[in-house]
Amino acid sequence: MATIKGVVISKQLVYDPTGARYIKIDIIEEKELPGPVAAFSTQDEQTAQLMREVMPLVTQIVRSLPFGGGKIAVPRVTLWLADDEAEMFGDVDVGDIVLIIIEGGEIRIKPES
Amino acid sequence: MATIKGVVISKQLVYDPTGARYIKIDIIEEKELPGPVAAFSTQDEQTAQLMREVMPLVTQIVRSLPFGGGKIAVPRVTLWLADDEAEMFGDVDVGDIVLIIIEGGEIRIKPES
Repeated sequence: MATIKGVVISKQLVYDPTGARYIKIDIIEEKELPGPVAAFSTQDEQTAQLMREVMPLVTQIVRSLPFGGGKIAVPRVTLWLADDEAEMFGDVDVGDIVLIIIEGGEIRIKPES
Repeated sequence: MATIKGVVISKQLVYDPTGARYIKIDIIEEKELPGPVAAFSTQDEQTAQLMREVMPLVTQIVRSLPFGGGKIAVPRVTLWLADDEAEMFGDVDVGDIVLIIIEGGEIRIKPES
């Protein structure tokens, strides 16, 4: 079983060629970007010490760069619901948390209560 | 409760900025395009009879035009699943039928068995 904590980031009204309208709901997962990985040889104790001192500074610089750290949004689910289906699903708004549960050959999507 | 009969139309391998890979699964619903609607006044019996005779021909012509009839694909669900999640969901392939069930504030997606 896997549970994903999704966030609704967009709601949009779209029409198909027959004129029927759908509410398009985009759900993403927020993911921490890994910072720079401190992988260095620890055989030379003096160098290791120096690296440990420098690392916080490097991390800080990398985080200040665009995409150098912080959070990214990974798309997880997009739904197109007709009006009556959207009503059955319940009202979700932008910013709401939606749980995506994968278990036993089935995916369940429900707003966090 | 609403049940939608979805069809998997695309499977694609995509990567997020961290390098993690996801299987993007697009599920659509096949929808009949309505043919031309035979709406005419039936007050004049002679005209009505003529219209009834002409309609099959009109329908035939319209169906031969692009988008004049037949089926269209309406997108319903797009999923991005990590490898382990795709394994839990089960193997779906392009062309497979997937049921989308909306009931009691929850959406369930499962391959048709």
